[in-house]
Amino acid sequence: MVPVRPENAYQARLLRVLRDGPRSRVELCDAVGLSRSKLTAEVDRLVELGLVESAGPAASRGGRRSSLLRVAGTVRFAGLVVGPDRLTAAVTDGELNVLAELHEPTDVRLGPEPVVARAVELVGKLRADLGLTHLNGIGVGLPGPVAFPQGSPVAPGALPGWHGFPVRDTLGAELECPTLVDNDANVMALGEQHAGIGRAFDDFLYVKLGTAIGCGLVLRGAPHRGATSGAGDIAHLGLADDGPGCACGEAGCLEAYCGDSGLVGAALDAARSGRSPALAERLAGSGTLTMADVARAAAAGDPAVQAVARDAARRLGRVLVGLVSFVNPAIVIIGGAPDGLGHALLAEIRAVVYRRSAPLTTGTMPIVLSDLGERAAVVGAARLISEQVFASD
Amino acid sequence: MVPVRPENAYQARLLRVLRDGPRSRVELCDAVGLSRSKLTAEVDRLVELGLVESAGPAASRGGRRSSLLRVAGTVRFAGLVVGPDRLTAAVTDGELNVLAELHEPTDVRLGPEPVVARAVELVGKLRADLGLTHLNGIGVGLPGPVAFPQGSPVAPGALPGWHGFPVRDTLGAELECPTLVDNDANVMALGEQHAGIGRAFDDFLYVKLGTAIGCGLVLRGAPHRGATSGAGDIAHLGLADDGPGCACGEAGCLEAYCGDSGLVGAALDAARSGRSPALAERLAGSGTLTMADVARAAAAGDPAVQAVARDAARRLGRVLVGLVSFVNPAIVIIGGAPDGLGHALLAEIRAVVYRRSAPLTTGTMPIVLSDLGERAAVVGAARLISEQVFASD
Repeated sequence: MVPVRPENAYQARLLRVLRDGPRSRVELCDAVGLSRSKLTAEVDRLVELGLVESAGPAASRGGRRSSLLRVAGTVRFAGLVVGPDRLTAAVTDGELNVLAELHEPTDVRLGPEPVVARAVELVGKLRADLGLTHLNGIGVGLPGPVAFPQGSPVAPGALPGWHGFPVRDTLGAELECPTLVDNDANVMALGEQHAGIGRAFDDFLYVKLGTAIGCGLVLRGAPHRGATSGAGDIAHLGLADDGPGCACGEAGCLEAYCGDSGLVGAALDAARSGRSPALAERLAGSGTLTMADVARAAAAGDPAVQAVARDAARRLGRVLVGLVSFVNPAIVIIGGAPDGLGHALLAEIRAVVYRRSAPLTTGTMPIVLSDLGERAAVVGAARLISEQVFASD
Repeated sequence: MVPVRPENAYQARLLRVLRDGPRSRVELCDAVGLSRSKLTAEVDRLVELGLVESAGPAASRGGRRSSLLRVAGTVRFAGLVVGPDRLTAAVTDGELNVLAELHEPTDVRLGPEPVVARAVELVGKLRADLGLTHLNGIGVGLPGPVAFPQGSPVAPGALPGWHGFPVRDTLGAELECPTLVDNDANVMALGEQHAGIGRAFDDFLYVKLGTAIGCGLVLRGAPHRGATSGAGDIAHLGLADDGPGCACGEAGCLEAYCGDSGLVGAALDAARSGRSPALAERLAGSGTLTMADVARAAAAGDPAVQAVARDAARRLGRVLVGLVSFVNPAIVIIGGAPDGLGHALLAEIRAVVYRRSAPLTTGTMPIVLSDLGERAAVVGAARLISEQVFASD
């Protein structure tokens, strides 16, 4: 099936407005700057194309009842997120509401072919479950640098064997629909833009904590990928020449301090040195510590673990001072922090950023934890492809 | 006189294309995506408005000779740049070629009223010299943070007494033409975008060295000012808690190492400690050192002064690693380095940036010295206002 796309810039703008929910004709005229008669022509054409439909009467404000319009109920996007140890796939409607979602464990170190093949099966299962005859497009998030125009990873530390693999073209050919592939932090920033607090801001940073550190930028209302789609690649900024070893082979990288393994490593030190008796006991019992152990200890008020979190947050905060001074976002959103640790990290990040940056830049800039949780990624992946499908060029 | 503006987005795009020089009708059709008949209608209207004129026949490529179009010869912009100790004003044509330029010493510490009044006189003198009856607009660069929507400085360290002064509204009322005010580094970035190597790139950083350090960003083809016009404000990023004192009152700021007074301070240390016999002699003779002394010594191969430059460049380079990783520009342009010092700084900046950043980001990213010199600022100021005048909204 040949995917249907809007025919001109007005139709594209109408679809993007309707992606945020049903609108009356009056609202659409205002939003895209069309006269009532021109709007009618464009809407009629979008209805003929099967992209828009009536959503029944609008709430009456006196006078003639006007009818609401919405993205057609047949529009379906998919979002696919490859994590280091998990695949997540979802299908959304044209407003990017998740209709169905599937997870399963994976091991990206198996290389791209089996993982991508399994992803195709997962999306196929979702289609079958929902009885879909087509997808309007699929967006994909990968945990590493992605050359966006090619849709393939570039030297991704967390994806051994994936360098240069044509993820976009392989998935697009298998699923027979428009496909785009991006870095997972960029995709999560798009999720925040659609369904999170980012919705209210044209310029924001989304900082992704977790196994890998990443950053997605939305500037002037659009994702900013930079000249070679490397923007936001802050994981391996060098903070200290004599810092802890990093998975990338260097030492003292931001990720080596603030990524999950950096935090667990510092917590192990606290356990072994006796600074945290609780973690020492846990370590003696299970032979190792996990991020969940660290978060639990922090939430329980373990002072040594809280000191670990503060130290990491202070280092991340210093990096953020440079980043916010440089691009002057309206808000910084921090995602991926495990429950129990997020607020400890946030407090110290705020202290450093607000103390060390210029009032013009951060005087009115909030720093907040994401409240979207994991769903940010699949919704963002769906939004990624919707940006292309709901465009006329 | 009411300033004439384009009436729609096509006319605005045509003027922006012609700002880069005369074009044939065929070239204009291609550049803005109009059919020949629609182009003719828009061009006719621009000619009626007095914004476009014929520039004579295009070079023949066989067949019928087509005529070139250009911005009308009556279009005149002004650029005004306030430096810490100098005012520069220029008048350009519609292609931003400088037709006349005036400098004079000033002291911004006198406060905004006398300096702005003197600037008005300087622009008036240029108008009289050129016999102009009108200006289509004036752009202004100030050495400090500027709230762009208001056109007034915000807590500008180098402009005591200027905080909140309505520079844009005062100049606009006096000169009776559209007026915009921006930070000087942003304005110089616009100059690079119009007339320098920045012309070839959609995403670049312009780093301004000199008395004050600043940075202008052009992202996705447009100046990036951020949520509160603070973007690029990197001067006071803290590099070391125990660093040299900065004019801002803090210690260890980037500017305290890499600004002129930081470099001169480090050179004074080299003179007093005997590490630089040449500078010691100079200091004994004149009682002080200037930036010109430092640059001359560096150019003459003085090892102690070259070490000073390398140390400063290394610190700037480390900051740039973070910035380029974050926004992934296509090129970094460094301006304001005095003759004799620029290449020493550049070599070390390149060494640090290329060694410490990801191949995806900097593999194809040049780092170059600006070849525009001081004219970047007035041309950029003229471009600033041309962006508004050559827009339809």
